Amino acid sequence: MANYQQMKLFMEPESIAAIGVSRQTGPDAYNLLENLLLYGYAGRLYPVNPNAAEILGVKTYASVADVPEIVDLAVISLPRDLVTQVVRQCIQKGIRAIVVVTQGFADADDEEGKRLQREIVNMVSGTETRILGPNTFGVANAHLRLSTSYIRIPMEANGVGTISQTGGTFVGLTDVRLAGKVIDVGDACDVNTVDGLRYFEEDDDTRVVVLHIEGMTDAKEFVDTVRRVALKKPTLALKVGRSEKLARAVQSHTGALIGSDLLWDVALRSAGVIRVNDIEELSDAIRAFLRLPAPKGNGVGLTTYTGGFGIIAADACCRNGMELVEFSKPTMDALSALLPEWLGVGNPVDIWPGVSIMGHPRAKMETAALRHVLSDPGVHAAMAVISAYQPHLGEEHLPMIREVARDFPNKPFVYFMYGMHFEEVRTTLESTGTTLAFPTPDRAARALMHLRRRDEYLQSQASRHAS
Amino acid sequence: MANYQQMKLFMEPESIAAIGVSRQTGPDAYNLLENLLLYGYAGRLYPVNPNAAEILGVKTYASVADVPEIVDLAVISLPRDLVTQVVRQCIQKGIRAIVVVTQGFADADDEEGKRLQREIVNMVSGTETRILGPNTFGVANAHLRLSTSYIRIPMEANGVGTISQTGGTFVGLTDVRLAGKVIDVGDACDVNTVDGLRYFEEDDDTRVVVLHIEGMTDAKEFVDTVRRVALKKPTLALKVGRSEKLARAVQSHTGALIGSDLLWDVALRSAGVIRVNDIEELSDAIRAFLRLPAPKGNGVGLTTYTGGFGIIAADACCRNGMELVEFSKPTMDALSALLPEWLGVGNPVDIWPGVSIMGHPRAKMETAALRHVLSDPGVHAAMAVISAYQPHLGEEHLPMIREVARDFPNKPFVYFMYGMHFEEVRTTLESTGTTLAFPTPDRAARALMHLRRRDEYLQSQASRHAS
Repeated sequence: MANYQQMKLFMEPESIAAIGVSRQTGPDAYNLLENLLLYGYAGRLYPVNPNAAEILGVKTYASVADVPEIVDLAVISLPRDLVTQVVRQCIQKGIRAIVVVTQGFADADDEEGKRLQREIVNMVSGTETRILGPNTFGVANAHLRLSTSYIRIPMEANGVGTISQTGGTFVGLTDVRLAGKVIDVGDACDVNTVDGLRYFEEDDDTRVVVLHIEGMTDAKEFVDTVRRVALKKPTLALKVGRSEKLARAVQSHTGALIGSDLLWDVALRSAGVIRVNDIEELSDAIRAFLRLPAPKGNGVGLTTYTGGFGIIAADACCRNGMELVEFSKPTMDALSALLPEWLGVGNPVDIWPGVSIMGHPRAKMETAALRHVLSDPGVHAAMAVISAYQPHLGEEHLPMIREVARDFPNKPFVYFMYGMHFEEVRTTLESTGTTLAFPTPDRAARALMHLRRRDEYLQSQASRHAS
Repeated sequence: MANYQQMKLFMEPESIAAIGVSRQTGPDAYNLLENLLLYGYAGRLYPVNPNAAEILGVKTYASVADVPEIVDLAVISLPRDLVTQVVRQCIQKGIRAIVVVTQGFADADDEEGKRLQREIVNMVSGTETRILGPNTFGVANAHLRLSTSYIRIPMEANGVGTISQTGGTFVGLTDVRLAGKVIDVGDACDVNTVDGLRYFEEDDDTRVVVLHIEGMTDAKEFVDTVRRVALKKPTLALKVGRSEKLARAVQSHTGALIGSDLLWDVALRSAGVIRVNDIEELSDAIRAFLRLPAPKGNGVGLTTYTGGFGIIAADACCRNGMELVEFSKPTMDALSALLPEWLGVGNPVDIWPGVSIMGHPRAKMETAALRHVLSDPGVHAAMAVISAYQPHLGEEHLPMIREVARDFPNKPFVYFMYGMHFEEVRTTLESTGTTLAFPTPDRAARALMHLRRRDEYLQSQASRHAS
């Protein structure tokens, strides 16, 4: 077990010994030292390699014993047979945080791997030294421009804190970086998910906590800890093993048991953790929690450029636990004034005739309708259905969107956008810092739903506490 | 009702009268004539506008009566009160295909709209003239560089034929263009979905048929027709109205009833139509049917660079109706030879140690493993889990992927790829023409499942026919 101060040595080291750094450099060399220099990590670096006096201009030491300070963190990337000996040197040196990157311990299929793992666990037992791994990418902290992964990763200090049982999370997902800060517990021989939670609970840089869980040795301690964390920060879990068949068929690659999926479901929900079904739902929910206010009710108002896609979006809202509300009389009147007389106004409201027939400029029509919809007391969130049929938005569009967000700070609005120029227009829209765009209405509605459910959870906990 | 020859006038016109084209041009003018010139449509164009002698250098006529030929197709975009009179002129002229773009007919909330719609229906009744619309974008045919939508759309002659009750489909989805050819039936006063099906059934350009359905007046005729089409071509339906609440709350914007969702489900499945839940599933399935062979069984083989994401992918396969098979002895032996001795080989197979420890170049390791997996007689499809941590693939990578596809023409392989450079690497991978990449394993597995299920359907129909 590691407390917050010990975890800080892993997550916020001021000095690192990189043990087993190669002299090879370049894109396919996976050189940790080269990566850290490229990121611009500002801490002190000590490469250790008995066959080099310097690597990339950095003085290199034959052994960790020769390093002229007791570094905060040692990262060991050596063939597995050499690891125990170096772990011993680190302990003797007084180093208190060790990442063992090397594979082939509990994750190996032979007895030797399990024996080696027991050996390093015994070595640190009773000492002040903690080991993260083996079989791990280690840690990343984009706030310090640091990653111990040999794979080079993007640095985005985005408020996401991730604890995973795989290094895949270092690279991140298509739409979101998971490595604002990340801890890969790997084979979790010593430092584990609970230790990671203790760090993120206290860490001011982290606003959303993400868990990738395959299995857990001490489920009770985990649930107690995560319940506490989830009261402070949105906590999302991708718990693998929905399929019973998989749980039986695939032994976890880190040696932990997958466990009963239904029990996990109940345990996570009762602890206030939001369990997501797949990485797309995870990605969308993270983005929502980082960016949007929580809706204070289920009511959604929809504006659309095509009746058909408006109905598709309405359907998606209803299927994802949100509700299409009837607009109030003042909202209807305000919308009607922008549209042809013959057009029945409802929710969704079709705004295209306001452009094509009434001649309102697109940006003005879009934001005026959004504003009227958000003004409705029954509307707690809005979704705008727009088409990315051209790559640009008008320049006057963005300030108008920012103003809507400023005037409705407690009501999120999102875009369901279709069309080939999705990526360009999304980048532009999201540059406002106040909204998100999704390529399907289901994803947009589900993101709103997660915001809403967390708000409900916090309220239920607050009222339980008060009563 | 329109037969194939009549539908060809709409879909493959050699001459078009554009009635109500404005003199305004530029991006916000939504000028049909300008669009057609920009697309490079090669047919003869006759703008009709009483206030102009020429528009964009094209001779312009005061009335459709003045146009010097009986055009194949007339497109009417005028205020609704002027439409009936012009429809009459078109009929008198002998024009047999009319698109009425104008809104405010059955889709309007007033009596006048419904009266006007009855009027134009009565006019064409018993004549050889057919009307598509009103309240429609009309038709698009990227093979002829033609679209009657005032919104400018991308032209991609991709084998997709779409029939929809909205113009949203003209713009297309984020990952796929729906308008290889598209028919927007709009208010469907005359030409309807069944007529569209008759066209796509015969049309050699169309390899995948896509239906966007809100409701239908003659469900029996539709089901009989679509059953025939689905035997010839993969036919996908986005039937709106999954949520009962929505079906009650939202009256369809085209005036058609949404109908019982469960009945639709049964009817579509029995007719061999693949019903998709949302536009993401639609988009992924279209891409799969355009690109990949059908797996001849449920068995999937997985290669991965990280154990954790491999398990996530395995989970996704099982949840989406595919199966993780045990590799045969020869497959295991071939994979083992590429990997460290201590690594247990299974499905998924973790190939990263082949790169990091055994020193195989990434492209070679990836395609060699894929090849071994696809050689396994129990494997009917493969999924490769890779990370897009850098924007490029090696140049030698693409020919190797093409060769794998060439050597296994009856076994699809797809990529689940994560990381910030997803879009760049996907574009590169898919440029091979032989594979698809998805940002989540669920989407990849679901696409394989749709290919598999259709193959099963065709086989069941063939054996029923044979017995």
